[in-house]
Amino acid sequence: MSPVPHPLDPLSPHEIAIASTVPKPSQSIANGSPIFRVITLNEPPKKETVVYLEARGEQLPPPRRIAKVHIYLNQQFHEILVDVTAKSVFSAEILHGKHSHVDSAYMKQVETACLSDARVQAEIASLQLPEEATVIVEPWTYATDGMNDMSARITMCWFYMRLSDHPDANYYAYPLDVVAEVSEKFEVTNISRLPSGEGDSISKKELFDRSKVHSSSEYHPDLQSDRRTTTRPLQVVQPEGPSFRIEGNFISWEKWTMRVGFNYREGLSLHDVRYDDRSLFYRLSLSEMFVPYGDPRCPYPRKGAFDLGNDGAGVNANNLKLGCDCLGHIKYFDAWHVTSTGDALKMPNVVCCHEVDDGILYKHTNFRTGNAVVTRSRLLVLQTIITVSNYEYCFLFYFGQDASIHYEVRATGILSTVPISVGERVPFGTVVAPGVLAPYHQHLFCLRIDPAIEGHRNSVAVEESIPMPFPHPTNPFGVGYVTKSAIISHEIGLDLDHAKNRVFKIVNENVINPTTGTPVGFKLLPCYSQLILAHPSSYHAKRSEFGAHAVWVTRYSDEELFASGVHTMQSLGGEGIASWIKNRQEDEKAQTAVQNEDIVVWHTFGSTHNPRIEDWPVMPCEKMIVGLKPFNFFDRNPGLDVPISTQEKNKSVLVGEKEPQVVTIEAEKPRL
Amino acid sequence: MSPVPHPLDPLSPHEIAIASTVPKPSQSIANGSPIFRVITLNEPPKKETVVYLEARGEQLPPPRRIAKVHIYLNQQFHEILVDVTAKSVFSAEILHGKHSHVDSAYMKQVETACLSDARVQAEIASLQLPEEATVIVEPWTYATDGMNDMSARITMCWFYMRLSDHPDANYYAYPLDVVAEVSEKFEVTNISRLPSGEGDSISKKELFDRSKVHSSSEYHPDLQSDRRTTTRPLQVVQPEGPSFRIEGNFISWEKWTMRVGFNYREGLSLHDVRYDDRSLFYRLSLSEMFVPYGDPRCPYPRKGAFDLGNDGAGVNANNLKLGCDCLGHIKYFDAWHVTSTGDALKMPNVVCCHEVDDGILYKHTNFRTGNAVVTRSRLLVLQTIITVSNYEYCFLFYFGQDASIHYEVRATGILSTVPISVGERVPFGTVVAPGVLAPYHQHLFCLRIDPAIEGHRNSVAVEESIPMPFPHPTNPFGVGYVTKSAIISHEIGLDLDHAKNRVFKIVNENVINPTTGTPVGFKLLPCYSQLILAHPSSYHAKRSEFGAHAVWVTRYSDEELFASGVHTMQSLGGEGIASWIKNRQEDEKAQTAVQNEDIVVWHTFGSTHNPRIEDWPVMPCEKMIVGLKPFNFFDRNPGLDVPISTQEKNKSVLVGEKEPQVVTIEAEKPRL
Repeated sequence: MSPVPHPLDPLSPHEIAIASTVPKPSQSIANGSPIFRVITLNEPPKKETVVYLEARGEQLPPPRRIAKVHIYLNQQFHEILVDVTAKSVFSAEILHGKHSHVDSAYMKQVETACLSDARVQAEIASLQLPEEATVIVEPWTYATDGMNDMSARITMCWFYMRLSDHPDANYYAYPLDVVAEVSEKFEVTNISRLPSGEGDSISKKELFDRSKVHSSSEYHPDLQSDRRTTTRPLQVVQPEGPSFRIEGNFISWEKWTMRVGFNYREGLSLHDVRYDDRSLFYRLSLSEMFVPYGDPRCPYPRKGAFDLGNDGAGVNANNLKLGCDCLGHIKYFDAWHVTSTGDALKMPNVVCCHEVDDGILYKHTNFRTGNAVVTRSRLLVLQTIITVSNYEYCFLFYFGQDASIHYEVRATGILSTVPISVGERVPFGTVVAPGVLAPYHQHLFCLRIDPAIEGHRNSVAVEESIPMPFPHPTNPFGVGYVTKSAIISHEIGLDLDHAKNRVFKIVNENVINPTTGTPVGFKLLPCYSQLILAHPSSYHAKRSEFGAHAVWVTRYSDEELFASGVHTMQSLGGEGIASWIKNRQEDEKAQTAVQNEDIVVWHTFGSTHNPRIEDWPVMPCEKMIVGLKPFNFFDRNPGLDVPISTQEKNKSVLVGEKEPQVVTIEAEKPRL
Repeated sequence: MSPVPHPLDPLSPHEIAIASTVPKPSQSIANGSPIFRVITLNEPPKKETVVYLEARGEQLPPPRRIAKVHIYLNQQFHEILVDVTAKSVFSAEILHGKHSHVDSAYMKQVETACLSDARVQAEIASLQLPEEATVIVEPWTYATDGMNDMSARITMCWFYMRLSDHPDANYYAYPLDVVAEVSEKFEVTNISRLPSGEGDSISKKELFDRSKVHSSSEYHPDLQSDRRTTTRPLQVVQPEGPSFRIEGNFISWEKWTMRVGFNYREGLSLHDVRYDDRSLFYRLSLSEMFVPYGDPRCPYPRKGAFDLGNDGAGVNANNLKLGCDCLGHIKYFDAWHVTSTGDALKMPNVVCCHEVDDGILYKHTNFRTGNAVVTRSRLLVLQTIITVSNYEYCFLFYFGQDASIHYEVRATGILSTVPISVGERVPFGTVVAPGVLAPYHQHLFCLRIDPAIEGHRNSVAVEESIPMPFPHPTNPFGVGYVTKSAIISHEIGLDLDHAKNRVFKIVNENVINPTTGTPVGFKLLPCYSQLILAHPSSYHAKRSEFGAHAVWVTRYSDEELFASGVHTMQSLGGEGIASWIKNRQEDEKAQTAVQNEDIVVWHTFGSTHNPRIEDWPVMPCEKMIVGLKPFNFFDRNPGLDVPISTQEKNKSVLVGEKEPQVVTIEAEKPRL
């Protein structure tokens, strides 16, 4: 990176090194060493950043570089902001009652403590497992259910076994009917048995059922025979190299420019996104995701994962491998995190950047001349993939030559499983193998869209397509329909309605398209999804407020990046997007107007994932796609100048006929 | 083709030749020559075909080959079925009151007649067009509006001008405010002016406004300067060739087998679709599409196009070009149609078959070992592209290694435009260039799914995800939810509801998945769309009954392939899917049960296309996607045996760093 980083560049290892040295002396350290959890860029206030961005050519002093440091000092969770340039503490605060995101070292300690506990060992012994079994403990964060005081960390330990020496044997195929709770002091505080059938809310002790042992649940190639051999290689060749240009974290490609950000929590974020030098979005990121399980039986309501807030999409990002996770010419971005002792930790290849062909962008054949004009659609892809215990998620931004953006989530990996008696069925889960229940659950994502459509004063228009009155003189044949549009005036959560073709447009009312006579805008192509099923008074719902509506509109605040609040670990609710809106509505001094203001649009989407056996033992990607498309923003198709598709450039290969030659009667007349 | 064609093979040119010779002598020809419109396979009755398909290895006599011949004899529209093997007429019928699909020779005659009419010429002269203008007449079929007797063909003539000598100049950019009607005898029966603004239902004669002339509406490369040069080549290389094998119309690829069909009306159809030799679908095809325009002003309610029934997806299929319409190793299928004189007409390259890479199929990293297993998703694509005057549609079937099928429609081409006074705006259209209005319209597609899920007795289950009662002892924490499923008992039209996660499954209740304990099935992934906006009593709605519901379930009938009836040209309604159901409901002798029967599922989807200026002058593809996925059909992920993704096979290329080298502090600990 250049000596002067861009205000939106993630912290460099050098800056992390500075930030790690500053807070230590500022606190007296009585009990043990400090434990670093986070050192990340505290993004500068939008006001300052916008001034910097808009100065562009001009030499302005950049906003000061602030590092956010999360650290346990004296076993208390601190947030310390460090001015990296001045090498001084900017602010420091003890986060009472809050917990940091998952700490893998801590979780490893939990596992060890659990397995060495004598009562746990006795319980396992009582299961009479096969001799070759290796017991695996899978620690999970505790989803608040109201049965415990949340001031200390509690970890749920779920038990599985492995029946093979192979370390990658699929232990999720053998869930055991035992569960334990481990305290922050690494003490096992509770051991119980899991329910085995629908009505069985407190299970009886049962002998381990040997008939549960089954042999078709492996996914690792070492453990699978008969892989298909019919798939022939398909390679992407780019003889002149990729069409993108990258300088540091700045990407330019096919009239697009943007800056790549990355942090421990959201993973990939995108900043200052422009097309043909026109401002579109200040920031795009996945704000939060929540995976509530629908199995009502105790203790399963404790399964509810905030995979960003609790686990971190950044810290769990995969090290992507050339030729495995993408094809063609690949640029990888690395990221920097921090070790528990405060050293910068390189996370290689957390984001890949490459191009894909997406079929036809546009085509027209003039039927009078027979002349066809066809262009192919090239996309720029920015991908990050995370592993959160059993599951993985691929997060992809696609940029199109027609100025469209698509955000795709692919859910894959292994289902989280629980035991079930052989022969039993329940209405809130699918039996995917004998004795293995994959409970119903939801994946709820919240995409945060911070627009800057030709500037920072934007509005949201909600448009519906509505039949004209009939019978009526203006609609004599009953075929007429019109659009009706309303600008959202105040902060609100809204829902989708495909039956009305309800469309959400982010517009700039100050900039009118001279041809259409309407404000320039971008339209949201939502992902139609069921919202959260948990009861509004449940902890699941209270903790994931964003799950209650599909589209939210709020005023911009530097403090509001995370739709379920900053600290989701064992949170109690009341900290998310609905609370922000409600609190401002109840505060006479607060502003709640969102028309022609600096606003943020949040889109909640996902899947109600009632597993099918085809998701087992490893799940083919389930895709969810959200789009953003210009709507009367440009003066024409912004991809109109994309090169015409030619065989000279594309070099396709004709596959010959192998069947016997046909008796052909050649065409007499020209055809299209 | 082999000497004995498969019963589902389209007619060979030899068979077309036979079929064309048989009907001629069977009718006395008094007035003029016969005009052939269609010679196509009359698919054998399903009962016979199923017996043939299920015999498989065994040698059974195939069902007899019947050609359906549509022909004008003595100016009457005939349907003659010819037994091609016996070379005899099987049945013959005059289709009184019906019209054949669009006849391009006829349309050309209409154009000529219109332009040579003295009153038309006078009307054009009164427009005072620029000297360099060439007037273009675009004939359209007449969408019934109740203002004319429909027994004879009426053609609407819309007027445009071209302002350049280039034959591919975009005349849709200069709509003229004149319209004419031409009769079946090629007489101009009416000339009128078009409305120029919202309230202007009968327009005044106005001088042509020279300010309408605008220069940014060309799409042809000859007429465009400054094409972007930044898009570098991207090629698909398959060093060992494609993974598919094709014999005649039979395709096998990655455990899939199917037969390709093609006819003048539906274009591509797929038959006897199996995965791993297990029966899934008897027939998949686009059944119909309708494009009703929403501009209420007379005469625009006459714009309503049945692009299959009136125009034909087969006869309008593009001759696909290597390297332009797809990348990689491409197999093309030709089709055979008929000339007006009864000769077989070759339609080359109407379907392309190739493979694409679709990113990650599945991935899992064992966080305990750091070992990742990743496979890439390869798809088989079958694509056909049609041109219907101004618009094009790409129709694509995608087959996945995970036994999923996706059907995609891409709408592209040029918007149909009408004139508007400069400065005017209307609430049912978008001004895309000065004086050019792109009226609102809908694209409504109906995908016909003829299932054969492990056999021909299938049912449709409608499942919803529903919160469990709360407070309630079985749901103490308020997080529980279950699925509730109901089997559809009788023929019906149903709607989508994403808020309830309403899922439509096609199941075989006679075959229970031994692990899940539920019937084997496939799930529909619908395309959420607004249904038809025209009033139920309008001709638009009465003629396109399928547009009233998103999912229809009917009993199988050999006669019911087309959701708006067999003859849509100037149809009056009462001939489509809702009428079939209603008629059977009212007929005491008719069967209406659809549980565990031979059924058909129809999915209506599309877009309410309120144009944006970015769709002009040629529209970037708008994608609509429908999916079919196995649901508890297999015993596990059917793509589990797909080869692991490796750089050795995929040969990706690393894009190097160009920025100055960073000060790196290397990772101390292993990371995923």
